[in-house]
Amino acid sequence: MNQSNSIRHKIHCLWKIAGFALVGYTAFSPMTYAADSSPALFNINNELLQPEGYREWVYVGTTVTPHDMNNGKAEVPEFHNVYIDPKSFTHWKKTGQFRDGAMVVKELLSVGAKKALTGNGYFMGEFTGLEAAVKDSKRFPDEPGNWAYFMYGMKYPLPRKATAKPTAECNACHQANAKDDWVFTQYYPVLQAAKPNK
Amino acid sequence: MNQSNSIRHKIHCLWKIAGFALVGYTAFSPMTYAADSSPALFNINNELLQPEGYREWVYVGTTVTPHDMNNGKAEVPEFHNVYIDPKSFTHWKKTGQFRDGAMVVKELLSVGAKKALTGNGYFMGEFTGLEAAVKDSKRFPDEPGNWAYFMYGMKYPLPRKATAKPTAECNACHQANAKDDWVFTQYYPVLQAAKPNK
Repeated sequence: MNQSNSIRHKIHCLWKIAGFALVGYTAFSPMTYAADSSPALFNINNELLQPEGYREWVYVGTTVTPHDMNNGKAEVPEFHNVYIDPKSFTHWKKTGQFRDGAMVVKELLSVGAKKALTGNGYFMGEFTGLEAAVKDSKRFPDEPGNWAYFMYGMKYPLPRKATAKPTAECNACHQANAKDDWVFTQYYPVLQAAKPNK
Repeated sequence: MNQSNSIRHKIHCLWKIAGFALVGYTAFSPMTYAADSSPALFNINNELLQPEGYREWVYVGTTVTPHDMNNGKAEVPEFHNVYIDPKSFTHWKKTGQFRDGAMVVKELLSVGAKKALTGNGYFMGEFTGLEAAVKDSKRFPDEPGNWAYFMYGMKYPLPRKATAKPTAECNACHQANAKDDWVFTQYYPVLQAAKPNK
């Protein structure tokens, strides 16, 4: 093989490697979304990656269960800010239903103060934790309502990924008590107000 | 004047009328925005129209001053959800400042429940009121920080427009106590977290 042929051969080999790499990436990509345009991104182990940018999603409501109203230790402390991804909110406004791929995020915060110029109450402190729910009929066909629940913990730094909780741990309570399709819309006035044909 | 000239004259007159109408519309249009791409829309009487679509803006935080923690009558009852328009949030993330035309909306809600499956606390009820703040250096050059404050009341149905409150009624307190440029960012963890060079 002369020098020119050798170079051609090397280039050919590089193209082959690049080609295999591309096919491999496409066929075995470890990340997949819950559904078209869903922000719920799963790795190959079916773990949900921590969502990004959710503080710019549609906010639906806040509940607060302070430590000092729960014998010093709230089960899910303390403020809970709840968001839904914008495309699922658009779908909700049109249909009053949660689309396949819908993602609801609950962010936890501490109470920072109990008094301000506006009076006595509860005022937000620091971000402390993160939870998420994903509706995915293909990935969670056996979960009631196809909803799976994920907890990234209640203390920073939070892990980058989470596995779905067993059905009995979250789903069962949502199924029994949530007003709309496993979502506690009774506490989320923005969803209530936006629901068509109320 | 022959027929052809008469038609030309009529067309000329129509153009003149259209021209005057266009100039008139531009000069005397009753609605104007606080600044480019600001959602703050004012009528000719300098009244701020009720904002639209703010529940899909960027949520920055909630405070709750319940009646039952304030001798049965909170000054600003009870939940307060606070939003900023998305372009101002983008500007804040880049600069840590509120742009000219920034609009902050505070939506008021009642307490709906004090107990749920997650424990004792405060859970949102109905929307009850709306307030807004607008930073506009051209419209409010004499207001400290160029911020003006508007209240649509605390009971539905809300009026469609509101006049700026006297400086002493809102602005003075914001100037003295708000952490960043007349905005109580100390209670809005989303703004705190997004501020560059903290």
